[in-house]
Amino acid sequence: MNIAIAGYGNLGRGVEAAVTNAPDMDLVAIFTRRDPASVKVATDTPVYAWSQMAEMTDQIDVVVICGGSATDLPQQTPELAKLFTVVDSFDTHANIPTHFANVDAAAREAGTIGIISCGWDPGLFSLARLYASAALPNGADYTFWGRGVSQGHSDAIRRIPGVVDARQYTVPVPEAVEAARSGENPELTTRQKHTRECFVVAEEGADLAAIEQAIVTMPNYFSDYDTTVTFISQEELNANHAGLPHGGTVIRSGRTGLANEFGDTVEFSLQLDSNPYFTGSVLASVARAAYRLSKDGQVGARTMFDIPPALLSPLSGEELRAHLM
Amino acid sequence: MNIAIAGYGNLGRGVEAAVTNAPDMDLVAIFTRRDPASVKVATDTPVYAWSQMAEMTDQIDVVVICGGSATDLPQQTPELAKLFTVVDSFDTHANIPTHFANVDAAAREAGTIGIISCGWDPGLFSLARLYASAALPNGADYTFWGRGVSQGHSDAIRRIPGVVDARQYTVPVPEAVEAARSGENPELTTRQKHTRECFVVAEEGADLAAIEQAIVTMPNYFSDYDTTVTFISQEELNANHAGLPHGGTVIRSGRTGLANEFGDTVEFSLQLDSNPYFTGSVLASVARAAYRLSKDGQVGARTMFDIPPALLSPLSGEELRAHLM
Repeated sequence: MNIAIAGYGNLGRGVEAAVTNAPDMDLVAIFTRRDPASVKVATDTPVYAWSQMAEMTDQIDVVVICGGSATDLPQQTPELAKLFTVVDSFDTHANIPTHFANVDAAAREAGTIGIISCGWDPGLFSLARLYASAALPNGADYTFWGRGVSQGHSDAIRRIPGVVDARQYTVPVPEAVEAARSGENPELTTRQKHTRECFVVAEEGADLAAIEQAIVTMPNYFSDYDTTVTFISQEELNANHAGLPHGGTVIRSGRTGLANEFGDTVEFSLQLDSNPYFTGSVLASVARAAYRLSKDGQVGARTMFDIPPALLSPLSGEELRAHLM
Repeated sequence: MNIAIAGYGNLGRGVEAAVTNAPDMDLVAIFTRRDPASVKVATDTPVYAWSQMAEMTDQIDVVVICGGSATDLPQQTPELAKLFTVVDSFDTHANIPTHFANVDAAAREAGTIGIISCGWDPGLFSLARLYASAALPNGADYTFWGRGVSQGHSDAIRRIPGVVDARQYTVPVPEAVEAARSGENPELTTRQKHTRECFVVAEEGADLAAIEQAIVTMPNYFSDYDTTVTFISQEELNANHAGLPHGGTVIRSGRTGLANEFGDTVEFSLQLDSNPYFTGSVLASVARAAYRLSKDGQVGARTMFDIPPALLSPLSGEELRAHLM
């Protein structure tokens, strides 16, 4: 199957690596909105201008769209679904229903498949929440993120005057994780669940106290959390905080038995050296499923909730039943 | 949807509780191979003789078959698939391909659906192995069971002369679990992964040393493990070992990146007060999916690998995308 990547940032690089390493996929094109000559990619995949995509429908089976959720994907996914079977990682949870409807309309009209919101959250974490709630309908869910770098929060800090660079780690509170596992279904506030650790490089002579105050009081991003700010040099940031590790844990505790006499806990967790490379790897497996659904004649929008798990794997049904069941 | 249970042991009780507590299901019949008048069930569900099942096809949408994997299910599931959409928990891993083929042939001929090998292993653990291997194709899987009661191993001890009762716990070795998480993909032997703890009630005057020797040297069951045997009274066994707790952990560690430069770990774990009630709850959710697949006109054998996850949930696609994605 011939795969293309639309958008070449961190996530595009992750998809590039995963598709290149997959035995059953060929990476045939990378599309960019920049000047293609200026984009150096990690493999020998040809780079094309975004505008050339429409002429290449016969050479591409699935386009993995690697834009951002804020402004790129709401436009790109419905638009590209008019021409290709597509996969995206749209992760603005509150807007998933609208995005799904837009992609569904475009894909149905064009006779394509659009699988949205793939990755680990939304994605594998969503699946963990769904399977756990189906198995334990009487229970409560908890999702913890981290310890890992939030690129959105890091960007928010970098926009503060006097800040040169920043890295923000989201950190689950161990006591909250233990409480979620306990089976007592505690109510946990935002502040009780996570703390935020900020490593900040300031301009020489900047007002550090003002920067710290601007961070910890920032609404939506930091004001609801216990936030620590540590000023470091650019060299230290480059040396110790260059990666994009992430991960987290989904916990559901619930009760079974006619009178709810038994307590159970289901837990799914990830620990990732590189968030974009793992997300890219999940997207590559979903591209495989999208190809298969498309060959099966299906059309419309999907999420990972709708995908028979076997379609994600390069193994046949027989191999899966023999070796993984 | 109208659900029936075929076979009323521990697992049948688990399904009874789960279906009774599900808002969208009615438990309409429990079938037994014993005299129905002798079977006391936990709800007011009518109990029928096994032979009456064939006359009730118009009253039942899905039969959840709760027999044992050794001799019951290989016969019962293909036989009942000729009359009903069925779900089972067949768990003899090595024989799943044969069982699948037999159920598939019967179900295709009859125009029914048969979903086999549902529960947590095979079942949710299989799904964890599949999703993790699709996301991390370059990696290694580890499955640990316990701490929990193995009914098969407990039964094996009870068959030793001089043994009145017994309970066997399978226990993962913490160092092995840590090694699996480490990302170093260690090769772990059977003995390195689990220990076995046996609590045994002996007849008065029995040769305890001979019983212990018979246990620890028993091929397939104990000889490949470090096994401890503790003799206790029937009262102590009843007081402290009456339950059927279980659980375990599936770990996959693998690498992403073009040159495998990043290491990731995916982990799924269960901690269950009651193995049969949790398994019964999973079976009830699969019965829901079986009903939906059947209404959709599909036929043949399936495993949880083939089931779109959304079909397991009582929530609609819209609700799932809005609340669990």
